[in-house]
Amino acid sequence: MLGIEEIGTYLPIGRISNYDRKSQFGIDDFFIEEKIGVRRVSVKSPEEETSDLCLSAFEDLQRRISLNKEEIEAVVVVTQNPDYNIPHTSAIVHGKLGLPSRCAAFDISLGCSGFVYALSVFQAFMAANGMKRGLLFTADPYSKVVDPQDKNTTLLFGDGAAVTLISEHPRFVTGRSTFGTLGSEYQKLICRDSTLFMNGRAIFNFAAKVVPDDLREMAAKNGIALEEIDRFLIHQGSKIIVDTIAAKLGLPAEKVPYATQDYGNTVSSTIPILLQNEFDGTARTIAICGFGVGLSWASSLLRRV
Amino acid sequence: MLGIEEIGTYLPIGRISNYDRKSQFGIDDFFIEEKIGVRRVSVKSPEEETSDLCLSAFEDLQRRISLNKEEIEAVVVVTQNPDYNIPHTSAIVHGKLGLPSRCAAFDISLGCSGFVYALSVFQAFMAANGMKRGLLFTADPYSKVVDPQDKNTTLLFGDGAAVTLISEHPRFVTGRSTFGTLGSEYQKLICRDSTLFMNGRAIFNFAAKVVPDDLREMAAKNGIALEEIDRFLIHQGSKIIVDTIAAKLGLPAEKVPYATQDYGNTVSSTIPILLQNEFDGTARTIAICGFGVGLSWASSLLRRV
Repeated sequence: MLGIEEIGTYLPIGRISNYDRKSQFGIDDFFIEEKIGVRRVSVKSPEEETSDLCLSAFEDLQRRISLNKEEIEAVVVVTQNPDYNIPHTSAIVHGKLGLPSRCAAFDISLGCSGFVYALSVFQAFMAANGMKRGLLFTADPYSKVVDPQDKNTTLLFGDGAAVTLISEHPRFVTGRSTFGTLGSEYQKLICRDSTLFMNGRAIFNFAAKVVPDDLREMAAKNGIALEEIDRFLIHQGSKIIVDTIAAKLGLPAEKVPYATQDYGNTVSSTIPILLQNEFDGTARTIAICGFGVGLSWASSLLRRV
Repeated sequence: MLGIEEIGTYLPIGRISNYDRKSQFGIDDFFIEEKIGVRRVSVKSPEEETSDLCLSAFEDLQRRISLNKEEIEAVVVVTQNPDYNIPHTSAIVHGKLGLPSRCAAFDISLGCSGFVYALSVFQAFMAANGMKRGLLFTADPYSKVVDPQDKNTTLLFGDGAAVTLISEHPRFVTGRSTFGTLGSEYQKLICRDSTLFMNGRAIFNFAAKVVPDDLREMAAKNGIALEEIDRFLIHQGSKIIVDTIAAKLGLPAEKVPYATQDYGNTVSSTIPILLQNEFDGTARTIAICGFGVGLSWASSLLRRV
């Protein structure tokens, strides 16, 4: 059975401190530490492309596991900030990594729900085509589209990437998933003329309303009680949204990590970055839930093998 | 078993005639009719967005079949010319169609191989998640990025869209597929600064070399001899590439339709537009093959139910 064998991650070393922007945006330490929960955001260098972030994550993967590139049968990149719109970034990654020609490659365009979606899409695609080893990249550098004068976005989003190795030797397998879309609200989080616009209040209200119900439904679909789930890796949109969702579900804080203080919201990479920390942990069942751009949301359950 | 129940298509009424551009580009009737095989290219109106093309294809689908929108469980849009990069176009289509919130939505970024890929990706995703009815849109209006002064592209590409209804009441089911990528050559067909660049010679050579072998491999994978396949729906890149592939495989012309004389190469929509014509036909086995941007290619076999 296919599942997650290993995860490689990458955070660029560049940082912008939100403490340095307190007077500019009229914010205080409480806002930085308790509301958004982001002290610094990570920023890629200007010459680093989305495909380069993927390659750096792949280098981390190679440090963790021995991997024969010739055996890679499929590669997907989840991004809405591709190197180019034509071609897909996965083709560029394929070329830069020197993967074999008998390797499928496609991009999935999704934002913060992208990892949860792509786990299902990619594993289903691989299984249907008898593929045994594939790379699922998430890399969505919002620094490309964030206006540094826009308090709603520049304090939150950080650049980062992850690569999830899907194989027949999994450490985690995926259970049943839930998916939802509220397309009528798509303008609440949108990039027009290369600039990101986010109605933060609307996105918060959307997530606070939709996500708890979705996690309940996902748990029921997997025949597990919420209390039985060891860990909840909630998309790290901000500290306040993670705290709010945890509170609404009555979850103890230790089950719901928030860990993006020093790099920010890395969009579709927040969950794999958190999940990498669980590999050597004890959690046996892990709920994952992403939400945002679309508006879109998805939840699933991982079980340790 | 999931498969293709019906197809809706849309070609905008706008046309640019290649006969009117003979002196501008130094081309003659033979070039227009026998080499590229495109007399006119279809052009959407400026205010028509990619999501609008999808909606028009959906209207055609509704004329062909009675459909309850509330039963749609998933929607995918294959495009590299989205309305916006953020959000995905499938969310906008979801909103404009008024689809239910319990509907998955994501975009796949692929070019001319997109339909063949998406059939596999989307059906596998739906099957893995127990979904019974989904919409697979292809809509990649290259008029957004084609330079009207560039002979290599402006004479070839036309705007169009298709929607393929995937359901448990299929008229065609998909067999085994093949996928390939030559990412090192990605710069041969690329959009920089909102302008498409194509090395036509390189793309032709690539397709002429890769596609015949891929179709042979796909046939073998499906346990069928090439001669037993009733129809070959080859991506309509140009007349000369379709003719060349057919000749290399020794296929009789009547098995390999070329039918884009009056609208041009509609990228990922060329195959579903051709396939719509087969619904009332007699072909029992239909090979499909897409190739282009990436560079990327994919083949599969459809069988009439």
